[in-house]
Amino acid sequence: MAGTKCIITGVPGVGKTTVITGALAKLEEMGVDYANISFGSFMFEMALKKGLVQNRDEMRLLGKDDQKALQRLAAGVIAKTDGNVIVDTHASVKTPKGYLPRLPEWVLEELKPDLFVLIETDEDQILGRRMGDPSRVRDMDSYRALVSHQSFNRAIAAAYAMKTGCTVAIVTNADHLLDRAIDDLAALLT
Amino acid sequence: MAGTKCIITGVPGVGKTTVITGALAKLEEMGVDYANISFGSFMFEMALKKGLVQNRDEMRLLGKDDQKALQRLAAGVIAKTDGNVIVDTHASVKTPKGYLPRLPEWVLEELKPDLFVLIETDEDQILGRRMGDPSRVRDMDSYRALVSHQSFNRAIAAAYAMKTGCTVAIVTNADHLLDRAIDDLAALLT
Amino acid sequence: MAGTKCIITGVPGVGKTTVITGALAKLEEMGVDYANISFGSFMFEMALKKGLVQNRDEMRLLGKDDQKALQRLAAGVIAKTDGNVIVDTHASVKTPKGYLPRLPEWVLEELKPDLFVLIETDEDQILGRRMGDPSRVRDMDSYRALVSHQSFNRAIAAAYAMKTGCTVAIVTNADHLLDRAIDDLAALLT
Repeated sequence: MAGTKCIITGVPGVGKTTVITGALAKLEEMGVDYANISFGSFMFEMALKKGLVQNRDEMRLLGKDDQKALQRLAAGVIAKTDGNVIVDTHASVKTPKGYLPRLPEWVLEELKPDLFVLIETDEDQILGRRMGDPSRVRDMDSYRALVSHQSFNRAIAAAYAMKTGCTVAIVTNADHLLDRAIDDLAALLT
Repeated sequence: MAGTKCIITGVPGVGKTTVITGALAKLEEMGVDYANISFGSFMFEMALKKGLVQNRDEMRLLGKDDQKALQRLAAGVIAKTDGNVIVDTHASVKTPKGYLPRLPEWVLEELKPDLFVLIETDEDQILGRRMGDPSRVRDMDSYRALVSHQSFNRAIAAAYAMKTGCTVAIVTNADHLLDRAIDDLAALLT
Repeated sequence: MAGTKCIITGVPGVGKTTVITGALAKLEEMGVDYANISFGSFMFEMALKKGLVQNRDEMRLLGKDDQKALQRLAAGVIAKTDGNVIVDTHASVKTPKGYLPRLPEWVLEELKPDLFVLIETDEDQILGRRMGDPSRVRDMDSYRALVSHQSFNRAIAAAYAMKTGCTVAIVTNADHLLDRAIDDLAALLT
Protein backbone atom coordinates (compact mmCIF):
# COMPACT_ATOMS: atom_id res chain seq x y z
CA MET A 1 0.00 0.00 0.00
CA ALA A 2 1.09 3.58 -0.50
CA GLY A 3 2.62 5.26 2.53
CA THR A 4 5.45 4.60 4.95
CA LYS A 5 5.21 1.74 7.43
CA CYS A 6 7.36 2.57 10.44
CA ILE A 7 7.94 0.36 13.48
CA ILE A 8 8.87 2.25 16.64
CA THR A 9 10.33 0.45 19.64
CA GLY A 10 12.00 1.12 22.97
CA VAL A 11 12.39 -0.59 26.34
CA PRO A 12 9.85 0.25 29.07
CA GLY A 13 10.68 3.59 30.63
CA VAL A 14 12.63 5.04 27.72
CA GLY A 15 9.77 7.46 26.96
CA LYS A 16 8.60 5.94 23.69
CA THR A 17 5.00 7.15 23.96
CA THR A 18 6.08 10.69 24.87
CA VAL A 19 8.42 10.90 21.90
CA ILE A 20 5.85 9.45 19.48
CA THR A 21 3.12 11.82 20.72
CA GLY A 22 5.44 14.80 20.34
CA ALA A 23 6.55 13.78 16.86
CA LEU A 24 2.96 13.22 15.72
CA ALA A 25 1.98 16.71 16.90
CA LYS A 26 4.91 18.18 15.00
CA LEU A 27 4.07 16.20 11.88
CA GLU A 28 0.44 17.31 12.04
CA GLU A 29 1.59 20.95 12.05
CA MET A 30 3.56 20.14 8.92
CA GLY A 31 0.53 18.50 7.30
CA VAL A 32 1.96 14.97 7.44
CA ASP A 33 -0.53 12.32 8.54
CA TYR A 34 0.33 9.13 10.38
CA ALA A 35 -1.97 6.52 11.85
CA ASN A 36 -0.57 5.37 15.21
CA ILE A 37 -1.22 1.72 15.98
CA SER A 38 -0.22 -0.08 19.17
CA PHE A 39 0.55 -3.59 17.94
CA GLY A 40 -0.40 -5.22 21.25
CA SER A 41 -3.74 -3.42 21.53
CA PHE A 42 -4.50 -4.06 17.88
CA MET A 43 -3.93 -7.81 18.31
CA PHE A 44 -6.07 -7.79 21.45
CA GLU A 45 -8.96 -6.13 19.60
CA MET A 46 -8.75 -8.72 16.86
CA ALA A 47 -8.69 -11.54 19.40
CA LEU A 48 -11.75 -10.05 21.13
CA LYS A 49 -13.67 -9.80 17.84
CA LYS A 50 -12.81 -13.39 16.96
CA GLY A 51 -13.94 -14.51 20.42
CA LEU A 52 -10.50 -15.93 21.24
CA VAL A 53 -10.25 -14.00 24.50
CA GLN A 54 -12.52 -12.02 26.82
CA ASN A 55 -9.90 -9.79 28.42
CA ARG A 56 -6.29 -8.74 27.93
CA ASP A 57 -4.88 -11.14 30.54
CA GLU A 58 -6.13 -14.06 28.49
CA MET A 59 -3.82 -13.03 25.63
CA ARG A 60 -0.88 -14.70 27.42
CA LEU A 61 -2.83 -17.93 27.67
CA LEU A 62 -3.40 -18.32 23.94
CA GLY A 63 -1.76 -21.37 22.38
CA LYS A 64 1.36 -20.86 20.31
CA ASP A 65 -0.39 -21.47 17.00
CA ASP A 66 -3.28 -19.14 17.88
CA GLN A 67 -0.81 -16.42 18.82
CA LYS A 68 1.08 -16.87 15.59
CA ALA A 69 -2.08 -16.76 13.49
CA LEU A 70 -3.23 -13.65 15.33
CA GLN A 71 0.12 -11.91 14.86
CA ARG A 72 0.12 -12.67 11.17
CA LEU A 73 -3.47 -11.53 10.74
CA ALA A 74 -2.91 -8.27 12.60
CA ALA A 75 0.28 -7.55 10.66
CA GLY A 76 -1.53 -8.18 7.38
CA VAL A 77 -4.34 -5.76 8.23
CA ILE A 78 -1.84 -3.07 9.23
CA ALA A 79 0.14 -3.58 6.02
CA LYS A 80 -3.02 -3.03 3.98
CA THR A 81 -3.82 0.26 5.76
CA ASP A 82 -3.54 3.05 3.25
CA GLY A 83 -1.23 5.93 4.12
CA ASN A 84 1.54 6.32 6.67
CA VAL A 85 1.45 4.10 9.72
CA ILE A 86 3.44 4.01 12.96
CA VAL A 87 3.42 0.59 14.63
CA ASP A 88 4.17 1.10 18.32
CA THR A 89 5.68 -2.09 19.76
CA HIS A 90 8.86 -3.62 21.21
CA ALA A 91 11.91 -5.06 19.49
CA SER A 92 11.82 -7.77 22.17
CA VAL A 93 10.03 -8.23 25.48
CA LYS A 94 11.83 -9.44 28.60
CA THR A 95 10.02 -12.53 29.93
CA PRO A 96 10.90 -15.19 32.54
CA LYS A 97 11.98 -17.41 29.61
CA GLY A 98 14.25 -14.76 28.07
CA TYR A 99 13.89 -12.11 25.40
CA LEU A 100 10.82 -12.72 23.26
CA PRO A 101 11.04 -11.24 19.74
CA ARG A 102 7.99 -9.11 18.94
CA LEU A 103 8.56 -9.20 15.18
CA PRO A 104 9.42 -12.74 14.21
CA GLU A 105 9.73 -13.60 10.54
CA TRP A 106 6.02 -14.26 9.92
CA VAL A 107 5.10 -10.81 11.26
CA LEU A 108 7.74 -9.06 9.16
CA GLU A 109 6.69 -10.91 6.01
CA GLU A 110 3.25 -9.38 6.37
CA LEU A 111 4.18 -5.95 7.71
CA LYS A 112 6.98 -5.18 5.23
CA PRO A 113 8.22 -2.15 7.20
CA ASP A 114 10.19 0.66 5.54
CA LEU A 115 11.77 1.93 8.72
CA PHE A 116 12.57 0.49 12.14
CA VAL A 117 13.26 2.92 14.98
CA LEU A 118 14.96 2.13 18.28
CA ILE A 119 14.31 4.81 20.90
CA GLU A 120 17.16 4.53 23.38
CA THR A 121 18.94 6.36 26.11
CA ASP A 122 21.58 5.82 28.74
CA GLU A 123 20.54 2.90 30.97
CA ASP A 124 20.98 4.98 34.12
CA GLN A 125 18.42 7.46 32.86
CA ILE A 126 15.96 4.66 32.10
CA LEU A 127 16.36 3.31 35.62
CA GLY A 128 15.71 6.78 37.01
CA ARG A 129 12.53 7.11 34.97
CA ARG A 130 11.27 3.67 36.02
CA MET A 131 11.89 4.47 39.67
CA GLY A 132 9.74 7.58 39.35
CA ASP A 133 6.83 5.72 37.73
CA PRO A 134 4.80 3.35 39.96
CA SER A 135 3.37 1.57 36.89
CA ARG A 136 6.91 0.51 35.94
CA VAL A 137 7.66 -1.30 39.18
CA ARG A 138 7.28 -4.68 37.55
CA ASP A 139 9.86 -3.64 34.95
CA MET A 140 12.69 -2.94 37.43
CA ASP A 141 16.04 -4.19 36.23
CA SER A 142 19.65 -3.86 37.13
CA TYR A 143 21.81 -1.47 35.11
CA ARG A 144 23.60 -4.36 33.45
CA ALA A 145 20.37 -6.17 32.64
CA LEU A 146 19.19 -3.05 30.85
CA VAL A 147 22.46 -2.72 28.93
CA SER A 148 21.98 -6.32 27.87
CA HIS A 149 18.36 -5.74 26.80
CA GLN A 150 19.07 -2.62 24.76
CA SER A 151 22.00 -4.37 23.14
CA PHE A 152 19.86 -7.41 22.29
CA ASN A 153 17.30 -5.08 20.74
CA ARG A 154 19.94 -3.57 18.45
CA ALA A 155 21.04 -7.03 17.38
CA ILE A 156 17.53 -8.20 16.62
CA ALA A 157 16.82 -4.96 14.78
CA ALA A 158 19.71 -5.89 12.48
CA ALA A 159 18.09 -9.26 11.86
CA TYR A 160 14.78 -7.52 11.09
CA ALA A 161 16.63 -5.34 8.56
CA MET A 162 18.24 -8.37 6.91
CA LYS A 163 14.78 -9.92 6.56
CA THR A 164 12.92 -6.88 5.21
CA GLY A 165 15.50 -4.45 3.82
CA CYS A 166 14.16 -1.73 6.14
CA THR A 167 16.52 0.91 7.54
CA VAL A 168 17.27 0.92 11.27
CA ALA A 169 17.46 4.32 12.97
CA ILE A 170 18.38 5.09 16.56
CA VAL A 171 16.71 8.05 18.30
CA THR A 172 18.23 9.05 21.63
CA ASN A 173 15.75 10.34 24.21
CA ALA A 174 18.20 11.77 26.72
CA ASP A 175 17.27 13.57 29.94
CA HIS A 176 16.45 17.26 29.30
CA LEU A 177 16.58 16.71 25.54
CA LEU A 178 13.09 15.47 24.74
CA ASP A 179 12.67 18.17 22.07
CA ARG A 180 15.69 16.82 20.30
CA ALA A 181 14.30 13.27 20.33
CA ILE A 182 10.96 14.52 18.98
CA ASP A 183 12.69 16.48 16.20
CA ASP A 184 14.82 13.47 15.29
CA LEU A 185 11.84 11.13 15.11
CA ALA A 186 9.78 13.64 13.12
CA ALA A 187 12.65 14.02 10.64
CA LEU A 188 12.73 10.26 10.12
CA LEU A 189 9.01 10.24 9.41
CA THR A 190 8.99 13.00 6.77
CA MET B 1 5.49 -32.61 18.73
CA ALA B 2 4.48 -32.07 22.35
CA GLY B 3 7.25 -30.93 24.65
CA THR B 4 9.75 -28.09 24.84
CA LYS B 5 12.64 -27.96 22.38
CA CYS B 6 15.51 -26.06 23.98
CA ILE B 7 18.85 -25.25 22.37
CA ILE B 8 21.71 -24.74 24.84
CA THR B 9 24.96 -23.10 23.76
CA GLY B 10 28.17 -21.68 25.19
CA VAL B 11 31.77 -21.16 24.08
CA PRO B 12 34.31 -23.90 24.90
CA GLY B 13 35.34 -23.66 28.53
CA VAL B 14 32.28 -21.85 29.82
CA GLY B 15 31.13 -25.00 31.62
CA LYS B 16 28.13 -25.83 29.45
CA THR B 17 28.18 -29.59 30.09
CA THR B 18 28.53 -29.11 33.85
CA VAL B 19 25.60 -26.74 33.97
CA ILE B 20 23.40 -28.96 31.79
CA THR B 21 24.24 -32.07 33.85
CA GLY B 22 23.42 -30.26 37.08
CA ALA B 23 20.16 -28.87 35.75
CA LEU B 24 19.09 -32.29 34.45
CA ALA B 25 19.70 -33.85 37.88
CA LYS B 26 17.63 -31.13 39.50
CA LEU B 27 14.84 -31.54 36.96
CA GLU B 28 14.81 -35.30 37.49
CA GLU B 29 14.26 -34.75 41.22
CA MET B 30 11.32 -32.57 40.27
CA GLY B 31 9.94 -35.23 37.97
CA VAL B 32 10.64 -33.28 34.78
CA ASP B 33 12.10 -35.35 31.96
CA TYR B 34 14.40 -34.07 29.24
CA ALA B 35 16.23 -35.95 26.54
CA ASN B 36 19.73 -34.49 26.14
CA ILE B 37 21.04 -34.59 22.59
CA SER B 38 24.47 -33.43 21.46
CA PHE B 39 23.80 -32.07 17.99
CA GLY B 40 27.30 -32.87 16.74
CA SER B 41 27.30 -36.47 18.00
CA PHE B 42 23.78 -36.98 16.70
CA MET B 43 24.78 -35.84 13.20
CA PHE B 44 27.85 -38.05 13.33
CA GLU B 45 25.77 -41.12 14.21
CA MET B 46 23.44 -40.41 11.31
CA ALA B 47 26.39 -39.98 8.95
CA LEU B 48 27.83 -43.31 10.16
CA LYS B 49 24.54 -45.11 9.62
CA LYS B 50 24.20 -43.68 6.14
CA GLY B 51 27.78 -44.72 5.37
CA LEU B 52 28.85 -41.13 4.63
CA VAL B 53 31.79 -41.32 7.04
CA GLN B 54 33.75 -43.92 8.97
CA ASN B 55 35.03 -41.76 11.79
CA ARG B 56 34.41 -38.35 13.30
CA ASP B 57 37.35 -36.66 11.58
CA GLU B 58 35.76 -37.37 8.22
CA MET B 59 32.81 -35.15 9.19
CA ARG B 60 34.85 -32.05 8.30
CA LEU B 61 35.58 -33.46 4.86
CA LEU B 62 31.95 -33.84 3.86
CA GLY B 63 30.89 -31.69 0.92
CA LYS B 64 28.78 -28.61 1.61
CA ASP B 65 25.60 -30.14 0.22
CA ASP B 66 26.08 -33.39 2.17
CA GLN B 67 26.62 -31.42 5.37
CA LYS B 68 23.52 -29.37 4.76
CA ALA B 69 21.39 -32.45 4.03
CA LEU B 70 22.73 -34.13 7.16
CA GLN B 71 22.04 -31.07 9.34
CA ARG B 72 18.50 -30.84 8.04
CA LEU B 73 17.88 -34.55 8.51
CA ALA B 74 19.22 -34.58 12.08
CA ALA B 75 17.21 -31.49 13.00
CA GLY B 76 14.07 -33.05 11.60
CA VAL B 77 14.50 -36.24 13.62
CA ILE B 78 15.09 -34.24 16.81
CA ALA B 79 12.02 -32.09 16.15
CA LYS B 80 9.90 -35.23 15.88
CA THR B 81 11.14 -36.58 19.22
CA ASP B 82 8.25 -36.68 21.62
CA GLY B 83 8.68 -34.90 24.95
CA ASN B 84 11.17 -32.30 26.15
CA VAL B 85 14.52 -32.10 24.41
CA ILE B 86 17.75 -30.25 25.11
CA VAL B 87 19.92 -29.78 22.03
CA ASP B 88 23.49 -29.24 23.21
CA THR B 89 25.41 -27.30 20.54
CA HIS B 90 27.12 -23.97 19.78
CA ALA B 91 25.67 -20.68 18.61
CA SER B 92 28.73 -20.43 16.36
CA VAL B 93 32.05 -22.23 16.11
CA LYS B 94 35.34 -20.37 15.68
CA THR B 95 37.11 -21.71 12.57
CA PRO B 96 40.09 -20.52 10.50
CA LYS B 97 37.54 -19.00 8.08
CA GLY B 98 35.64 -17.13 10.79
CA TYR B 99 32.60 -17.81 12.94
CA LEU B 100 30.55 -20.67 11.53
CA PRO B 101 26.84 -20.58 12.47
CA ARG B 102 25.69 -23.89 13.93
CA LEU B 103 22.01 -23.18 13.40
CA PRO B 104 21.59 -21.74 9.93
CA GLU B 105 18.10 -21.17 8.61
CA TRP B 106 17.57 -24.71 7.26
CA VAL B 107 18.34 -26.21 10.67
CA LEU B 108 16.02 -23.80 12.50
CA GLU B 109 13.19 -24.45 10.05
CA GLU B 110 13.30 -28.11 11.03
CA LEU B 111 14.09 -27.76 14.74
CA LYS B 112 11.53 -25.05 15.58
CA PRO B 113 13.04 -24.37 19.03
CA ASP B 114 10.99 -22.80 21.83
CA LEU B 115 13.95 -21.54 23.82
CA PHE B 116 17.55 -20.65 23.05
CA VAL B 117 20.01 -20.45 25.96
CA LEU B 118 23.42 -18.78 25.96
CA ILE B 119 25.59 -19.92 28.85
CA GLU B 120 28.11 -17.15 29.40
CA THR B 121 30.54 -15.77 31.89
CA ASP B 122 33.25 -13.17 32.17
CA GLU B 123 35.90 -13.81 29.50
CA ASP B 124 38.68 -13.81 32.05
CA GLN B 125 37.04 -16.69 33.88
CA ILE B 126 36.68 -18.66 30.64
CA LEU B 127 40.39 -18.17 29.92
CA GLY B 128 41.22 -19.42 33.40
CA ARG B 129 39.13 -22.53 32.91
CA ARG B 130 40.66 -23.27 29.51
CA MET B 131 44.16 -22.92 30.93
CA GLY B 132 43.32 -25.51 33.57
CA ASP B 133 41.99 -28.02 31.04
CA PRO B 134 44.52 -29.72 28.73
CA SER B 135 41.75 -30.75 26.31
CA ARG B 136 41.01 -27.07 25.71
CA VAL B 137 44.49 -26.15 24.55
CA ARG B 138 43.37 -25.94 20.93
CA ASP B 139 40.69 -23.44 21.97
CA MET B 140 43.09 -20.86 23.47
CA ASP B 141 42.13 -17.31 22.61
CA SER B 142 43.00 -13.82 23.67
CA TYR B 143 40.68 -12.03 26.05
CA ARG B 144 39.48 -9.74 23.27
CA ALA B 145 38.92 -12.62 20.85
CA LEU B 146 36.66 -14.22 23.44
CA VAL B 147 34.75 -10.98 24.00
CA SER B 148 34.25 -10.84 20.26
CA HIS B 149 33.06 -14.46 20.08
CA GLN B 150 30.58 -14.19 22.94
CA SER B 151 29.29 -10.95 21.46
CA PHE B 152 28.88 -12.56 18.02
CA ASN B 153 26.97 -15.41 19.66
CA ARG B 154 24.51 -12.96 21.21
CA ALA B 155 23.99 -11.29 17.85
CA ILE B 156 23.37 -14.54 16.03
CA ALA B 157 21.05 -15.69 18.81
CA ALA B 158 18.94 -12.61 18.04
CA ALA B 159 18.83 -13.65 14.38
CA TYR B 160 17.77 -17.17 15.43
CA ALA B 161 14.95 -15.60 17.48
CA MET B 162 13.79 -13.48 14.54
CA LYS B 163 13.66 -16.62 12.42
CA THR B 164 11.84 -18.89 14.88
CA GLY B 165 10.12 -16.70 17.47
CA CYS B 166 11.99 -18.53 20.26
CA THR B 167 13.00 -16.67 23.40
CA VAL B 168 16.68 -16.04 24.11
CA ALA B 169 17.84 -16.46 27.71
CA ILE B 170 21.29 -15.80 29.14
CA VAL B 171 22.55 -17.98 32.00
CA THR B 172 25.69 -16.75 33.73
CA ASN B 173 28.02 -19.49 34.96
CA ALA B 174 30.31 -17.39 37.15
CA ASP B 175 33.21 -18.71 39.23
CA HIS B 176 32.02 -20.07 42.59
CA LEU B 177 28.37 -19.73 41.53
CA LEU B 178 27.73 -22.94 39.63
CA ASP B 179 24.69 -23.70 41.79
CA ARG B 180 23.19 -20.45 40.71
CA ALA B 181 23.72 -21.25 37.02
CA ILE B 182 22.17 -24.70 37.51
CA ASP B 183 19.14 -23.22 39.27
CA ASP B 184 18.73 -20.60 36.54
CA LEU B 185 18.87 -23.17 33.76
CA ALA B 186 16.51 -25.54 35.58
CA ALA B 187 14.04 -22.68 36.05
CA LEU B 188 14.09 -21.98 32.31
CA LEU B 189 13.35 -25.63 31.58
CA THR B 190 10.32 -25.99 33.89
CA MET C 1 29.01 -22.66 -9.34
CA ALA C 2 32.49 -23.84 -8.48
CA GLY C 3 34.63 -21.36 -6.58
CA THR C 4 34.42 -19.34 -3.40
CA LYS C 5 32.00 -16.42 -3.16
CA CYS C 6 33.33 -13.93 -0.61
CA ILE C 7 31.65 -10.71 0.48
CA ILE C 8 34.04 -8.07 1.80
CA THR C 9 32.77 -5.08 3.75
CA GLY C 10 33.98 -2.20 5.87
CA VAL C 11 32.85 1.30 6.83
CA PRO C 12 34.10 4.22 4.69
CA GLY C 13 37.67 5.09 5.62
CA VAL C 14 38.63 1.73 7.06
CA GLY C 15 40.87 1.03 4.05
CA LYS C 16 38.83 -1.72 2.45
CA THR C 17 40.03 -1.11 -1.11
CA THR C 18 43.68 -0.96 -0.04
CA VAL C 19 43.42 -4.25 1.83
CA ILE C 20 41.58 -5.97 -1.02
CA THR C 21 44.08 -4.73 -3.60
CA GLY C 22 46.98 -5.95 -1.50
CA ALA C 23 45.43 -9.34 -0.87
CA LEU C 24 44.65 -9.81 -4.56
CA ALA C 25 48.27 -9.07 -5.49
CA LYS C 26 49.44 -11.60 -2.94
CA LEU C 27 46.97 -14.21 -4.15
CA GLU C 28 48.07 -13.65 -7.76
CA GLU C 29 51.66 -14.41 -6.75
CA MET C 30 50.36 -17.62 -5.23
CA GLY C 31 48.46 -18.47 -8.40
CA VAL C 32 45.04 -18.01 -6.86
CA ASP C 33 42.56 -16.14 -9.06
CA TYR C 34 39.71 -13.97 -7.83
CA ALA C 35 37.36 -11.78 -9.78
CA ASN C 36 36.78 -8.53 -7.85
CA ILE C 37 33.30 -7.09 -8.25
CA SER C 38 32.06 -3.87 -6.73
CA PHE C 39 28.41 -4.63 -6.03
CA GLY C 40 27.33 -0.99 -6.41
CA SER C 41 29.12 -0.48 -9.74
CA PHE C 42 27.88 -3.81 -11.01
CA MET C 43 24.27 -2.90 -10.26
CA PHE C 44 24.77 0.49 -11.89
CA GLU C 45 26.08 -1.11 -15.09
CA MET C 46 23.07 -3.42 -15.20
CA ALA C 47 20.71 -0.51 -14.65
CA LEU C 48 22.42 1.41 -17.46
CA LYS C 49 22.11 -1.53 -19.86
CA LYS C 50 18.46 -1.95 -19.01
CA GLY C 51 17.87 1.76 -19.57
CA LEU C 52 16.64 2.28 -16.01
CA VAL C 53 19.09 5.12 -15.34
CA GLN C 54 21.41 7.39 -17.30
CA ASN C 55 23.89 8.20 -14.55
CA ARG C 56 24.86 7.01 -11.10
CA ASP C 57 22.92 9.69 -9.21
CA GLU C 58 19.70 8.35 -10.67
CA MET C 59 20.28 5.04 -8.87
CA ARG C 60 18.95 6.59 -5.64
CA LEU C 61 15.78 7.66 -7.41
CA LEU C 62 14.80 4.18 -8.52
CA GLY C 63 11.55 2.91 -7.02
CA LYS C 64 11.74 0.32 -4.27
CA ASP C 65 10.58 -2.53 -6.47
CA ASP C 66 12.99 -1.61 -9.28
CA GLN C 67 15.87 -1.51 -6.79
CA LYS C 68 14.91 -4.87 -5.39
CA ALA C 69 14.64 -6.45 -8.84
CA LEU C 70 18.00 -4.97 -9.81
CA GLN C 71 19.68 -6.23 -6.62
CA ARG C 72 18.32 -9.70 -7.14
CA LEU C 73 19.35 -9.73 -10.80
CA ALA C 74 22.88 -8.54 -10.08
CA ALA C 75 23.32 -11.04 -7.25
CA GLY C 76 22.13 -13.85 -9.50
CA VAL C 77 24.61 -12.98 -12.22
CA ILE C 78 27.48 -12.82 -9.71
CA ALA C 79 26.47 -16.17 -8.22
CA LYS C 80 26.64 -17.73 -11.67
CA THR C 81 30.16 -16.43 -12.29
CA ASP C 82 32.51 -19.37 -12.50
CA GLY C 83 35.52 -19.33 -10.19
CA ASN C 84 36.36 -17.33 -7.08
CA VAL C 85 34.65 -13.98 -6.61
CA ILE C 86 35.11 -11.12 -4.18
CA VAL C 87 32.02 -8.94 -3.83
CA ASP C 88 33.12 -5.54 -2.54
CA THR C 89 30.22 -3.85 -0.74
CA HIS C 90 28.99 -2.69 2.68
CA ALA C 91 27.32 -4.60 5.48
CA SER C 92 25.09 -1.54 5.90
CA VAL C 93 25.14 2.04 4.64
CA LYS C 94 24.47 4.99 6.92
CA THR C 95 21.62 7.06 5.44
CA PRO C 96 19.44 9.89 6.77
CA LYS C 97 16.79 7.23 7.48
CA GLY C 98 19.16 4.95 9.41
CA TYR C 99 21.36 1.99 8.57
CA LEU C 100 20.38 0.47 5.24
CA PRO C 101 21.25 -3.24 4.87
CA ARG C 102 23.19 -3.90 1.66
CA LEU C 103 22.50 -7.63 1.67
CA PRO C 104 18.86 -8.15 2.50
CA GLU C 105 17.40 -11.64 2.28
CA TRP C 106 16.61 -11.55 -1.45
CA VAL C 107 20.23 -10.67 -2.28
CA LEU C 108 21.64 -13.40 -0.04
CA GLU C 109 19.29 -16.00 -1.48
CA GLU C 110 20.83 -15.37 -4.90
CA LEU C 111 24.44 -14.78 -3.87
CA LYS C 112 24.83 -17.74 -1.50
CA PRO C 113 28.16 -16.48 -0.09
CA ASP C 114 30.67 -18.85 1.52
CA LEU C 115 32.47 -16.20 3.51
CA PHE C 116 31.62 -12.75 4.84
CA VAL C 117 34.48 -10.47 5.87
CA LEU C 118 34.26 -7.37 8.06
CA ILE C 119 37.31 -5.16 7.72
CA GLU C 120 37.46 -3.12 10.91
CA THR C 121 39.73 -1.05 13.03
CA ASP C 122 39.66 1.20 16.05
CA GLU C 123 37.16 4.00 15.44
CA ASP C 124 39.69 6.67 16.30
CA GLN C 125 41.91 5.44 13.48
CA ILE C 126 39.00 5.54 11.04
CA LEU C 127 38.26 9.12 12.02
CA GLY C 128 41.90 10.02 11.45
CA ARG C 129 41.85 8.46 7.99
CA ARG C 130 38.63 10.22 7.03
CA MET C 131 40.02 13.57 8.15
CA GLY C 132 43.01 13.08 5.88
CA ASP C 133 40.86 12.24 2.83
CA PRO C 134 38.88 15.09 1.23
CA SER C 135 36.62 12.60 -0.58
CA ARG C 136 35.45 11.30 2.81
CA VAL C 137 34.19 14.66 4.08
CA ARG C 138 30.58 13.64 3.57
CA ASP C 139 31.21 10.55 5.72
CA MET C 140 32.34 12.43 8.86
CA ASP C 141 30.93 10.95 12.04
CA SER C 142 31.47 11.22 15.74
CA TYR C 143 33.51 8.56 17.48
CA ARG C 144 30.41 7.12 19.10
CA ALA C 145 28.45 7.11 15.85
CA LEU C 146 31.24 5.04 14.30
CA VAL C 147 31.27 2.62 17.23
CA SER C 148 27.54 2.24 16.74
CA HIS C 149 27.90 1.66 12.98
CA GLN C 150 30.66 -0.95 13.27
CA SER C 151 28.69 -2.70 15.99
CA PHE C 152 25.54 -2.70 13.84
CA ASN C 153 27.56 -4.19 10.99
CA ARG C 154 28.70 -7.06 13.20
CA ALA C 155 25.13 -7.73 14.26
CA ILE C 156 23.80 -7.74 10.71
CA ALA C 157 26.71 -9.96 9.62
CA ALA C 158 25.45 -12.49 12.18
CA ALA C 159 22.00 -12.31 10.61
CA TYR C 160 23.55 -12.83 7.16
CA ALA C 161 25.31 -15.94 8.53
CA MET C 162 22.08 -17.31 9.99
CA LYS C 163 20.45 -16.86 6.57
CA THR C 164 23.21 -18.38 4.44
CA GLY C 165 25.41 -20.52 6.68
CA CYS C 166 28.47 -18.48 5.60
CA THR C 167 31.31 -17.90 8.05
CA VAL C 168 31.95 -14.38 9.36
CA ALA C 169 35.58 -13.31 9.68
CA ILE C 170 36.93 -10.06 11.08
CA VAL C 171 40.10 -8.58 9.59
CA THR C 172 41.66 -5.73 11.55
CA ASN C 173 43.32 -3.04 9.44
CA ALA C 174 45.18 -1.19 12.19
CA ASP C 175 47.47 1.80 11.70
CA HIS C 176 50.99 0.72 10.66
CA LEU C 177 49.84 -2.89 10.24
CA LEU C 178 48.44 -2.93 6.71
CA ASP C 179 50.66 -5.90 5.80
CA ARG C 180 49.09 -7.88 8.56
CA ALA C 181 45.58 -7.08 7.32
CA ILE C 182 46.55 -8.07 3.78
CA ASP C 183 48.03 -11.36 5.00
CA ASP C 184 44.95 -12.08 7.08
CA LEU C 185 42.58 -11.43 4.19
CA ALA C 186 44.71 -13.46 1.76
CA ALA C 187 44.72 -16.38 4.23
CA LEU C 188 40.91 -16.30 4.35
CA LEU C 189 40.74 -16.41 0.57
CA THR C 190 43.03 -19.43 0.08
